[in-house]
Formats: sequence, structure tokens, C-alpha cells
Amino acid sequence: MGVGYICCTSSSSSSSTLLTYKPKQLFNLANPTTTSITSQSHFKTSTNFYSISCTSSSFLPLKCGAGIDIRETQDENTSNPMMGIHNINPDLLQQMVYDALVWCSLHGLVVGDKSVQNSGIVPGVGMKHAPFALLPTSFPQTQWQQACDLMCIFNELIDRVSLDGNFLQDTLSRTKRVDVFTSRLLDIHSMMLEIKKKEEIRLGLHRSDYMLDDQTKDLLQIELNTISSSFPGLGCLVSELHSNLLNHYGDHVGLQSGRVPGNTALTGYADALGQAWKEYNDPRAVVMVVVQTEERNMYDQHWLSTVLKERHAVTTIRKTLAEVDSEGELLPDGTLLVGGQKVAVIYFRAGYAPSDYPSESEWEARLLMECSSAVKCPSISYHLAGTKKIQQELAKPNVLERFLENKDEIAKLRKCFAGLWSLDDPHAVRDALERPELYVLKPQREGGGLVISDLFHLILLISNSCCFSRKKIK
Amino acid sequence: MGVGYICCTSSSSSSSTLLTYKPKQLFNLANPTTTSITSQSHFKTSTNFYSISCTSSSFLPLKCGAGIDIRETQDENTSNPMMGIHNINPDLLQQMVYDALVWCSLHGLVVGDKSVQNSGIVPGVGMKHAPFALLPTSFPQTQWQQACDLMCIFNELIDRVSLDGNFLQDTLSRTKRVDVFTSRLLDIHSMMLEIKKKEEIRLGLHRSDYMLDDQTKDLLQIELNTISSSFPGLGCLVSELHSNLLNHYGDHVGLQSGRVPGNTALTGYADALGQAWKEYNDPRAVVMVVVQTEERNMYDQHWLSTVLKERHAVTTIRKTLAEVDSEGELLPDGTLLVGGQKVAVIYFRAGYAPSDYPSESEWEARLLMECSSAVKCPSISYHLAGTKKIQQELAKPNVLERFLENKDEIAKLRKCFAGLWSLDDPHAVRDALERPELYVLKPQREGGGLVISDLFHLILLISNSCCFSRKKIK
Repeated sequence: MGVGYICCTSSSSSSSTLLTYKPKQLFNLANPTTTSITSQSHFKTSTNFYSISCTSSSFLPLKCGAGIDIRETQDENTSNPMMGIHNINPDLLQQMVYDALVWCSLHGLVVGDKSVQNSGIVPGVGMKHAPFALLPTSFPQTQWQQACDLMCIFNELIDRVSLDGNFLQDTLSRTKRVDVFTSRLLDIHSMMLEIKKKEEIRLGLHRSDYMLDDQTKDLLQIELNTISSSFPGLGCLVSELHSNLLNHYGDHVGLQSGRVPGNTALTGYADALGQAWKEYNDPRAVVMVVVQTEERNMYDQHWLSTVLKERHAVTTIRKTLAEVDSEGELLPDGTLLVGGQKVAVIYFRAGYAPSDYPSESEWEARLLMECSSAVKCPSISYHLAGTKKIQQELAKPNVLERFLENKDEIAKLRKCFAGLWSLDDPHAVRDALERPELYVLKPQREGGGLVISDLFHLILLISNSCCFSRKKIK
Repeated sequence: MGVGYICCTSSSSSSSTLLTYKPKQLFNLANPTTTSITSQSHFKTSTNFYSISCTSSSFLPLKCGAGIDIRETQDENTSNPMMGIHNINPDLLQQMVYDALVWCSLHGLVVGDKSVQNSGIVPGVGMKHAPFALLPTSFPQTQWQQACDLMCIFNELIDRVSLDGNFLQDTLSRTKRVDVFTSRLLDIHSMMLEIKKKEEIRLGLHRSDYMLDDQTKDLLQIELNTISSSFPGLGCLVSELHSNLLNHYGDHVGLQSGRVPGNTALTGYADALGQAWKEYNDPRAVVMVVVQTEERNMYDQHWLSTVLKERHAVTTIRKTLAEVDSEGELLPDGTLLVGGQKVAVIYFRAGYAPSDYPSESEWEARLLMECSSAVKCPSISYHLAGTKKIQQELAKPNVLERFLENKDEIAKLRKCFAGLWSLDDPHAVRDALERPELYVLKPQREGGGLVISDLFHLILLISNSCCFSRKKIK
């Protein structure tokens, strides 16, 4: 079994992006006051909707669909926007929405509907279309390519940081005192350090979230997710939806289908999981997805399992942390059995939030898995390397140099750091209070989308952001 | 514009079929008492579930899914069934059901959920998996091929019958007196006869329903649908679902994926509609689907529109009969405009039941369309030619000879006639009362599935059958 790591990267989004060469032609969905009508719920950005940053926004409930609204993004530098929603004939717009809803239904771009019982437990019941942006957002091609290029460097960085146990422990030592959750993760990490546990096969499925600064057009990183990076399945479908809509309506809305970049996140994720499974080298072993008890985003996960099966003939099982605790067994050689099945790869789509650990049982499951020889995506080290506190530390002078040698790569990373200050920085706090429009609040942990629902309408474009630390927009 | 007709045929079912050479190996899903658990609703066969006829049946609610149960069919001649559900490991069975539910969700094998508001109006909300049979039913290849071969002859027959206005009027004259609905259809038909209206392009999308006689293994026709023949979309998906499941589990259940025959009903329907549209010869004209106000089977229809668009770049509009009445306009040259759009082809997925005509408005719409030059699928003649009364008449001695010349073809048709008696035949009534197990009741009109819900558990295999006339099974 060779030493190595596999990092699969998605810098794509759950909306798709339309490449343009000229930032001045950033797509502008401006004030759509002529369109209409009823809506069941307010617009909610799906996690990690990347876009140009916007300075004004409004919502437009449409006749069709559950909670579909149209978001406008306004590029102040754009004196001559390509096409605004307000320029589209309302009947045509209605038809596009209808077609999009049909497309979602027929192509599995769906989620569980909270209002229907069991929709987060049993597949095939209580489904509705996933929330989506009707049209792709223009995004400058240079910065798009920059984001893609950066991912390899970030993956290398995360891997090297994960191998530096002392750096992780030291950097998070203060957090450990105030955050019980991170403290428990650090305890597991300490135990692994003590027993000198080595992860010979390391798998990261990372997603880096960016915003484009409104004025400078700089690409700025919001965060890098190392655990439960979601939407490879649905995100790819949104790209396909946009291509399909523009095939039929592109001429009417002034957008070209051919300029929607292909999104290969799903096959990328599946291939990475398949490769890790192959490295583990046991044809009878399975990939285990660690899931929450209820999961209305299950179809995103099912797409991944489906493609993994199709492309690599690898079987997936789904277990909650509690099930792993009750059914799990560690053999003397480190082999993890769950429900009698040998586990080659553990893919976490749960375990990133305190609510995923309601009892000691779940923590015992996490420890059991960490002690095993199964490939963990992520390992406890990768998980910790993705915390905001580590991100903040890496942004300090001379810290990147501890992990990377190539000065060019270091410069590239640093260029996309937006600035991150903790709440114990009095200057940052004062400045933020004086100029709140320049800052956003971000949680230390993952799954921020659940925490910041009240702030959705204020900070539309950063659904994973908010709360304990801060990120200066410019 | 040439004179001609296009008939697209589906002899496939909403379940799929597994071909076998030996009738003795008919697939047997026998008493699955070891599997389990909870279910939200009772089993309901989807419309037109063809299968071998069964002499015993039972239901098994499963843990997953909304109203999924397992139906057993018992072939009394089969002493050594290939594999029964009761022989499948319960965990494996559960896993197959789960995988099937996921497959349905990701691949658009869905319907609207009656319990969710708007699920029959707005696409993308209140969806659930369509009801499906978990495994294909074995069916002898010879009879399968026989059914496929018969379809061309039936299409020819329907077309010739439709051209014989007097035959239709005479045969249905007694029905006219007792059935207001058929009477209204006949009135429109009379008007067309009076003005000598010719349908230069005739399009039939027919579906012929069969049962296999339990003892003789004869293929017997239940009915032939000439209006609103549904499930080309979902039916093809069920075949794909079965192939997919057998790819993964075939070895465990003793069935081969490769023996599930391909189902091309969807592309066949789309190509036929595309061809009719092309014959109409106006690139700006659309195909209009006449729909019910609420339609929970809308995704079956959307699949057809989607494939029609993909393969033939033809746009579809959807209108209720009331909308056709309010938005429709007939130009002096016979051109039909609806909402200002020229209609090349009218495809009826409504209009077959009295409830589709709640007011005079809907009848006016039907007449307007019939008077137009648009290709009607079906025309009033095709519609009438599909009534049970006509089917009964055609089964009488020497009647087929009025329409067909080829003796071999006539013999083939007659061989699949099961026997059909009206309630005014005292001998048939007496015999049915004495031996009720040999008869089923069938309605004169279409959409019988809605009428016979109470009888579902008695006559499992003939969901479109029942009520006013009778069919002797053997």
C-alpha cells in the first residue's frame, strides 16, 4: 500500500457560471419588477452560491415552483449590462421557469421537502426541485481559471498542515478552551498523535468558496471546506440545467450555452473515492457514507454513490454515527467492520457539527473510525486543518512558508486571502462596528448555513459564512 | 400535403417484461411472508400493468417507500419457479427496494403526490416515486413477439374502421341512446360526416393491453386504447430500472438484465408526433397537449415533450379544454390558433372521460379542434373506433372481413380476441353469475382505472377493466 494522498477539488458552485472575458460584461439581473406572482417561501441561497459580490439585491417571487425567486446582482461598474431579467418578456420568463422546473423533476435535481414526513429519511417520497438560479451568473474567465489553479496548491497546503500535529494543536489551543466541540476533535487528534497513527492513504474532497470583490475584481477566498463538501451531484446538474435552458432560450436572453463551463465535480468526487477504495485494495470492502439521521439533501449524496457504482463498481453503505457505534467493530489489524461489512473508505456527510454528536455514542463512533485503517475523508487532521482558526493563522505573515517552498505558489495563495480577524482583535471589532458594510461574520465551524438563516437576506452571497469571526470584504 | 396516417404503437407496459422461451419458467414471486414492515398505503397497480394472469395473490408492505408492496403471481403450471421473493434474503430485498427508490428519484420516474397541494398543477413540487414492480415479470418470448406483430395489423384496422363513418354511427347507435358522453362524441362525428371533413394526416398513438391466459398461455387482448394512451415515458423508465437492478442483483435473484427487452415507446411516440408535425409543414407551429386541470401523471407527459423537443426541435404547449375554448380561434383556412400560436398537432391527454367536460365550453373546444386542419391524435373517428362497443362488434363473425383483406392477418387478430359480451346477453350474464371467477367487468369508456378502485384487489391484473361489459378470461 503506497503512501500518498488524493485530493479531489471542486471549485464549482451549485449555480453555474458563465465565463466572460470582460469584467465589464458581468451578467446583471436587474430590477425585475414587471414579473410576478406568488411564492410559498422566500429565496434561500443554496450553500456555496458563488458569484460576483453584489451591492444591491431584490427578490422576485414567481408563479411557479416552491420558493423560486430571482436574485439580481448589480455590477456598479457595468454601464451596459448584457441583459436583465426586466428585459425578458414576462411570458417567456414564466415559460423558462416552467421548463426549468420540469427539467429538475426529470433529471434528479431534487431535495426532500421539509413539510413532508419522511422526506429526509426515505428516498422517493416528499421530493421537490432543489432551489436554483434560473440563469447562470457571468464570471470573468481569468478569475475562474485562477480559482481552478489555486485548488491544487490549497490541497497540497491542507495535506501538509494536516501532517503537522503540533501546529494544529498549538493553533487551536485557545479555541479548545472555549469550544467544547473543537476540544473533542482535538482530543481524538491528540490520541492519534500519541499512538503515532499514520494515515497511509489520505483522501480530501475539498471545496473552496470564493467571492469576487466588487470593485477590484480580486478573487477572495471565503473558506475551504475539508469535511462534508456538498453539492457535487446537484451542482453539476445546475450547470446542465443552465446549458439546456440557454440552448432553447439563449438568444432571447443574450447568453450562450457554450460559455457555461462544464462541471465535472461529480465524476471527480466519484473517481477520487474510487481511487481511494482501490488503494485500500480489498474488492469486498465498501465505501461508507456517514450520514445524518435526517437528510433532505440525500439526492446529492445518492448521485455520488450512483456514479461511484457506475464508474468503479464500488458499493456504498449509509450509516449514522450512532449506527457506526452500535454496528462497528475494529479488528486487531485495524480493519473496520460495520454491520459485518469491511469498510475501505469513510466519507463524512455528517460529523461536522455539535448537533451530530448528541451523546457519547457518536463520539465513540468517531474515535473508532479514526483508529481504523479505513481511508477517512476527512481524517481528524484534515478536519481540523479546515477550521477557520487555522485559516486565520495561515493568513499571518510567514506561516505559509512553514508548509510550502514555492514562492510563486505562496504568493498566489496569499493574493486570495481576504483577511480574517478574530473577535478578540479590538481594532477589527471597532472598524467593523463603524463600517459594518465591509465585514461579514463567519462561524469557526462548518455547516454555517444552518446558523445564519436570519442573516441570509443581508449577506446573500456567503451562505456558509458568519458568526464568530469576521471576513473583511475589501 | 400527402394523405397518410402514422401509427405509433406501444405494446409495452408500465412494468417491464422478461423474455423466456419456456412458459414453464414464468417468473413466480411467491409468498414473501418473511419480509416486512410498514407501508403508508395499499398496493395499487398502475394503469396497464400487464402480466401473466394470476390465480392467487398477496400483498407485502415494505419498510421503504410510499405504498410499495410486492405482488406475487403464481403460475400453477410451474412446479419449479425460477426464484420467489421469499427466496431472496430480506436484507437484500430491502436494499433492492432502497436502490430502486433512489433510482426513481434520480431518473424522473416520478408522479405527483396527491397529498401535496399543487402537485398536479406545478411541476417540481410534491413529487414521489411512481408505483413500480420491483422485478420484471417473466413472459414467454413467442407471445411477446406476437403482441408486437399484432400491433401493425390493429393500427391498420383502427384506421380503416375510422374511415367508415356509417359503421361507427350504426354500431354505436344503441350506446348513443343510453350514454350521453358517447352521444356527444357521435354528434361531433356526425357533423364532420355532414361537412365531409377529411383528415389528410392521421396520427394514432395506440396502446394495446393483453393478458396471457393462465392455462392455455394464449395472448388475449383486453382493450386497445386510441386516446390518451399513457406511460410511454414512465414505462420506458421502468424497463431501465429493471435492467439496472438486475445488473447489480441479477445473480442473486436468478434473472438476467440482458433479457429485459428494450422499451422504445417514448422515442416511438416522440418520433410519431414529430413526423405528424413535419407533415403539417409549418416550422412555427407547435404541438398542443390537451391536459386535465390537475394531472399527477404530468411527468410521463413531460418526458414525451422533452424528447420531442430534443429529437425534433418541436415546441409543446399544454392547454386544458377550457383554455382551448377561451384562447382558441379557427382561421378561415382551418388553421387552429391557441393563445395566438398555430397548432400543428393536437395530442389528447384529456377529453376521454365525461368529467373532462364539466360545461359546454369543453365541448365547444372539442368541436373547434375537430373542425381545424391540425392533426388530431386522436380524431373523433379514431376516438370512437377505440370504444369497447366497436371492439365487441369487430369480434363478431365476418366483421373483420369488412375492413381487412388478408386472411392471415384476420386470423391473427381473431386469435387474440378474448370474447366480449354486453350485459343484454342473458346467457353471458347467467354464466358469469354462476362462474364469476372466469369474467371481468369492463367499462365502455376509457379511464376505467378511476372507476374500479374498489375492485383493484379482486382483479389485480386488469386495471383498465371493469363495469359495464364483460370479458371472459378463458
